[in-house]
Amino acid sequence: MTVDRLLPTPEAHDLLDLTRELATRELAGKAADFEARGEFPRDVLRTLGRSGLLGLPYPEEVGGAAQPYEVYVQVLEILAGSWLAIAESVSVHTLSCYPVFAHGSERQRKSLPDMLGGELLGAYCLSEPQGGSDAASLLTRAVPDGDGWRLDGTKAWITHAGHADFYNVFCRTGGPGPKGISCVIADAGTPGLQPQKPERTMGLRSSAPAQIVFDGCHVPADRLVGAEGIGFTIAMEALDAGRLGIAACAVGLAQAALDYATSYAQERVQFGRPIGDFQGVGFMLADMATQISAARALLLHAARLKDAGRPFSIEAAKAKLFATDTAMRVTTDAVQVLGGAGYVADHPAERWFREAKVLQIVEGTNQIQRLVISRSLTHPVRS
Amino acid sequence: MTVDRLLPTPEAHDLLDLTRELATRELAGKAADFEARGEFPRDVLRTLGRSGLLGLPYPEEVGGAAQPYEVYVQVLEILAGSWLAIAESVSVHTLSCYPVFAHGSERQRKSLPDMLGGELLGAYCLSEPQGGSDAASLLTRAVPDGDGWRLDGTKAWITHAGHADFYNVFCRTGGPGPKGISCVIADAGTPGLQPQKPERTMGLRSSAPAQIVFDGCHVPADRLVGAEGIGFTIAMEALDAGRLGIAACAVGLAQAALDYATSYAQERVQFGRPIGDFQGVGFMLADMATQISAARALLLHAARLKDAGRPFSIEAAKAKLFATDTAMRVTTDAVQVLGGAGYVADHPAERWFREAKVLQIVEGTNQIQRLVISRSLTHPVRS
Amino acid sequence: MTVDRLLPTPEAHDLLDLTRELATRELAGKAADFEARGEFPRDVLRTLGRSGLLGLPYPEEVGGAAQPYEVYVQVLEILAGSWLAIAESVSVHTLSCYPVFAHGSERQRKSLPDMLGGELLGAYCLSEPQGGSDAASLLTRAVPDGDGWRLDGTKAWITHAGHADFYNVFCRTGGPGPKGISCVIADAGTPGLQPQKPERTMGLRSSAPAQIVFDGCHVPADRLVGAEGIGFTIAMEALDAGRLGIAACAVGLAQAALDYATSYAQERVQFGRPIGDFQGVGFMLADMATQISAARALLLHAARLKDAGRPFSIEAAKAKLFATDTAMRVTTDAVQVLGGAGYVADHPAERWFREAKVLQIVEGTNQIQRLVISRSLTHPVRS
Amino acid sequence: MTVDRLLPTPEAHDLLDLTRELATRELAGKAADFEARGEFPRDVLRTLGRSGLLGLPYPEEVGGAAQPYEVYVQVLEILAGSWLAIAESVSVHTLSCYPVFAHGSERQRKSLPDMLGGELLGAYCLSEPQGGSDAASLLTRAVPDGDGWRLDGTKAWITHAGHADFYNVFCRTGGPGPKGISCVIADAGTPGLQPQKPERTMGLRSSAPAQIVFDGCHVPADRLVGAEGIGFTIAMEALDAGRLGIAACAVGLAQAALDYATSYAQERVQFGRPIGDFQGVGFMLADMATQISAARALLLHAARLKDAGRPFSIEAAKAKLFATDTAMRVTTDAVQVLGGAGYVADHPAERWFREAKVLQIVEGTNQIQRLVISRSLTHPVRS
Repeated sequence: MTVDRLLPTPEAHDLLDLTRELATRELAGKAADFEARGEFPRDVLRTLGRSGLLGLPYPEEVGGAAQPYEVYVQVLEILAGSWLAIAESVSVHTLSCYPVFAHGSERQRKSLPDMLGGELLGAYCLSEPQGGSDAASLLTRAVPDGDGWRLDGTKAWITHAGHADFYNVFCRTGGPGPKGISCVIADAGTPGLQPQKPERTMGLRSSAPAQIVFDGCHVPADRLVGAEGIGFTIAMEALDAGRLGIAACAVGLAQAALDYATSYAQERVQFGRPIGDFQGVGFMLADMATQISAARALLLHAARLKDAGRPFSIEAAKAKLFATDTAMRVTTDAVQVLGGAGYVADHPAERWFREAKVLQIVEGTNQIQRLVISRSLTHPVRS
Repeated sequence: MTVDRLLPTPEAHDLLDLTRELATRELAGKAADFEARGEFPRDVLRTLGRSGLLGLPYPEEVGGAAQPYEVYVQVLEILAGSWLAIAESVSVHTLSCYPVFAHGSERQRKSLPDMLGGELLGAYCLSEPQGGSDAASLLTRAVPDGDGWRLDGTKAWITHAGHADFYNVFCRTGGPGPKGISCVIADAGTPGLQPQKPERTMGLRSSAPAQIVFDGCHVPADRLVGAEGIGFTIAMEALDAGRLGIAACAVGLAQAALDYATSYAQERVQFGRPIGDFQGVGFMLADMATQISAARALLLHAARLKDAGRPFSIEAAKAKLFATDTAMRVTTDAVQVLGGAGYVADHPAERWFREAKVLQIVEGTNQIQRLVISRSLTHPVRS
Repeated sequence: MTVDRLLPTPEAHDLLDLTRELATRELAGKAADFEARGEFPRDVLRTLGRSGLLGLPYPEEVGGAAQPYEVYVQVLEILAGSWLAIAESVSVHTLSCYPVFAHGSERQRKSLPDMLGGELLGAYCLSEPQGGSDAASLLTRAVPDGDGWRLDGTKAWITHAGHADFYNVFCRTGGPGPKGISCVIADAGTPGLQPQKPERTMGLRSSAPAQIVFDGCHVPADRLVGAEGIGFTIAMEALDAGRLGIAACAVGLAQAALDYATSYAQERVQFGRPIGDFQGVGFMLADMATQISAARALLLHAARLKDAGRPFSIEAAKAKLFATDTAMRVTTDAVQVLGGAGYVADHPAERWFREAKVLQIVEGTNQIQRLVISRSLTHPVRS
Repeated sequence: MTVDRLLPTPEAHDLLDLTRELATRELAGKAADFEARGEFPRDVLRTLGRSGLLGLPYPEEVGGAAQPYEVYVQVLEILAGSWLAIAESVSVHTLSCYPVFAHGSERQRKSLPDMLGGELLGAYCLSEPQGGSDAASLLTRAVPDGDGWRLDGTKAWITHAGHADFYNVFCRTGGPGPKGISCVIADAGTPGLQPQKPERTMGLRSSAPAQIVFDGCHVPADRLVGAEGIGFTIAMEALDAGRLGIAACAVGLAQAALDYATSYAQERVQFGRPIGDFQGVGFMLADMATQISAARALLLHAARLKDAGRPFSIEAAKAKLFATDTAMRVTTDAVQVLGGAGYVADHPAERWFREAKVLQIVEGTNQIQRLVISRSLTHPVRS
């Protein structure tokens, strides 16, 4: 189905066309197999990197494509419609480049072209087993150790664990609370950095997260990002933008499910008519389409606020909440439109349904988003 | 609460400031009384007209303000937050000026400055008692009669009935179906044009609709708009834009209800804390805020499509559906946040709740919107 | 529409027939007028009392009808379908007889026949302006005063205020918290018992609640119910049963709205067919009917638990929550099925919609019900 | 969590205790493995049969346990909480015994003890690939062939395909429409009865349905059930009861998910408190519990109507619709309460979520249920 998009530039239009072409050629045909096998598509990400899709929102001087978030999130949306794991991977990688880009030293920033070009894949190590939603209470410690830091602790739900080339590790260098947290970069292969077995996830199996155990892992002093004690600030900045990424994944997933269900409803005949001609099905499709349009519009509003340099954190939380709840409802209904066919792997609907669920959980559960939004209402920060 | 708006021009910013100022000064204090008395605020509309708020989306050469719909709908939104009847009145009046503006003769268009300036208030006579949603089957007839037309029939749910200066009458000049329908303009006071008693509506009582009986009402030939047989096309064009107006009313109403409920939740203490600090209430507010942001973003997307000259009819239907369903939910929950206080006329929440309901019904019930949207999905028009 | 009821006795069957007959003859035709005028139907309640409908769940030896709650709540349901204010009045009166019945002295219990026969109408004074949901923090004081108590304070949202013959007053005779609360009975007309102007409620206007100011109101010592300090316990016991009453009101209101909307959908023709034949409307009716059946079944389950002497407080909270949320949704949709006709006073749908809202608020807001239920889950009392 | 049940007899109480004990001992520990391997638990069903759980609602003289449906469905509920595939299997098997029990010849009924004892497992072949919801248009033909019938056609979504010992085959022996349909019993192993590969279902993988191709399959004349032309009537009778079975599965699944999520919420600490103590989570649990209680009560109401010999088809449709929609919502939220842990196979929540979806589809999609209910409202059969 054609989505009515209002794009800011002709270049954005071309970029979306390129993305659609890549998604059709490189992603759509591979997703089901990789998901079934649980194999991480490292090469596909390299291809995307070479096509310039891994550094979209960063400036050209560091190897990015200088695209506004308004455009970047629509690229993610299209990728997610073909293969959620890839879109989420792009979003996480983009997030993972943020600390070095925004707070890194000159020397650290020298790696940005390789990072944004896809040669160096990133991971973002914030969550821990005991504190999923309560990130500020993290326990992983970095203690001074010779000319660097010694990391000990366990990170959980880490996308790209075992596949990443560099890991942003948020760790405690000071006292309790957010101000005792710093961010260091650990390279893959550092002794003591031990990715664990992938989680047995219900979906997103080609890019299942895993725990990472840091066991006396030594990181040189110059891998500290910015300064001691600003780690939590960095993490939250990145997460605000990361929420836009997840919202975009949700919109793309929901749109794919709607398109598939619509096609099915046009072709499947029962009681002598295509089932889409019955209002019982047609109105379901209408509600799905309406919610998706609303989710996309809200996402783009939040992205444009960010592009305009305006506060966007709360609108990003709303977009994440609304888009992922929408994706869950829409994929549930898409399976329903297909009936029995929706419940089997011959059609992608059941995969999208399994995938949608994770989006309500990652990068701040939707309960955390509601908390953030409600606080902004009842305890607004006066500026 | 401040809404984060991305406006296209500094002029739009000023216009919204002016609207807020007018709404606070001229509307907010009067709404409750006029609603209680069921008195139509003709003078308030004149004031708005003189302030330039009645012709916003029309070009300057006919007396308009040349504002894009993107801006016009945000003006409506702000007005609706203070007094829904006024905002709906502005929307209906704007709609009523459309036939003459888009299809009128040179002579007819001479009245546009008075229409857009608010001296001549318009009404839009499409619905009939037997065919609310099924407008194409309308029965009001116009038969040639000397140098004009003779109108006979009954129109229903007509906003401004008895107050308007001119009435767009959609009537049957030919055979059955949409192609037999024409649009003529009848002036108030024409013999045989008989506004009936206002309906005893649950809300919007300062601008209750009424039936209009046309009983041998003679209209001169030059009051036909455009040509015979294009009436239904005109009606549908106007309704597409009218849906944006109702959606804007819904967003403004919902925002007012959220703001009020939020303030209440910050101040009302139970169990030793402001009730907004309990997640049970705070999460309600967060969901209300999220849905409103989504509704507004969807509305603005549809408006921008219209402003860009792109097809916008389906997105307008989605915006009408989503925004008005949102307004109903949000106002229901706003009353709930206030508890017993929400149920009494000491607070405006109960009024907003009664008002929200009508928005799900007018200018195409939300079931008709779903029908329009579902058809666009399963029977798309290839362009 | 016939509801498929499984009644425990033939007597119950007769009682429901009698109730239906009374509702049709005495209530249905009067409701709209009394509501419009805001006049309290004291005589109608006397008629119900003489018909034996005011003491249904109490034993025959005190003037009741010895009916199980399972039957009593179905009587309330039928009354509510004709006139909510009457059903709510019966529920509140039944509640108001509970303290004396369950904890009263011999002398106090002598009034039970007059109470249950409807000669003496009761009120239940628990809520206060500052503490709606937080009843245990009530401020109305009773201090020893000669041979009795002197009451000072303000009660809020009191049904039957100004019409009742006796008032259960929950007041503080001891320290803070629930254990400092006692229950005394104050007769109407006692100096210092000052009912205020009725609240300007959105619905239920024939029985609008009001504040009662107690200003040095002297109550004799023998009007204390039970013992000092057990007032809160009494209040909570009564409220558990009261929740069943409100749930029954909600089911009856919703059923009336469904029946009316169904009839309308069978008769109203659009696009050449009764609108109920379109799945867009038919499925709405199906969802309404399903939710009502579920609400009624849950209500009856809770009532049967009570009748069996089993703990029923949590199931009563669930029934109140579910039935009243259902009534709000169903009446909102019933108005929608009628379209414009639903929004005007020519049909009862708009009244039911206004009335439904109060049920989500009274006798513990639905947020309080959720709190009660969630605590029973996460902090179960092991028995 | 203890569910407050009102059981009709002490025997029913014992039966539920036995079921719980069996479920804990024989089912709970095996479900995850069998599901992971996609292995059909034929032996477990034999164990249930020997324990008397396969013939519960049938009379003792044919080998049943003479239990009312009210009790039978609560047994299913408990089984479903441990292993949905087993509960669904019991429900389908019970359904499959119905044609012979209710319409079979003396000779056919001789097999009932073996059927109800679990030695002979049954299948129910109604759906076909082209007509899922539109069963009356089935295409599988039975033509007279020597001393019997020759079956040709394809059945789809057949539970127990390849495992059953006997297959109820609904086939066309006459003209188009429901009156041309008959029911014959085909034994496993009959030449030409060809079960296909199991469907690759998202859940319920230990009992995945499959197509069955009938290719010149010869069935003796005495395997016709009842008479020619009554097949559709038989099918619909069985389905009415089958809906109660699916509703019971849904209630049991939802209850298991609630219990698990509640335990998790009591133990999982974030921000210094068990997450169940935050209203954001606690209110979710309360809503889940309320909907489950309503679903169970509605199910039992429909079952009691059947037990009383009253019409129950519409209430069964409501119970199927409401209970399965509830199971989908509740399992979705149960995963959410667990957060990331809910998304992985270390916990059963993700399995229940995948399983819940199929219940909205089988034995009449929830759209078909809505259709049945809406017709009963707008086109009631006057009796």
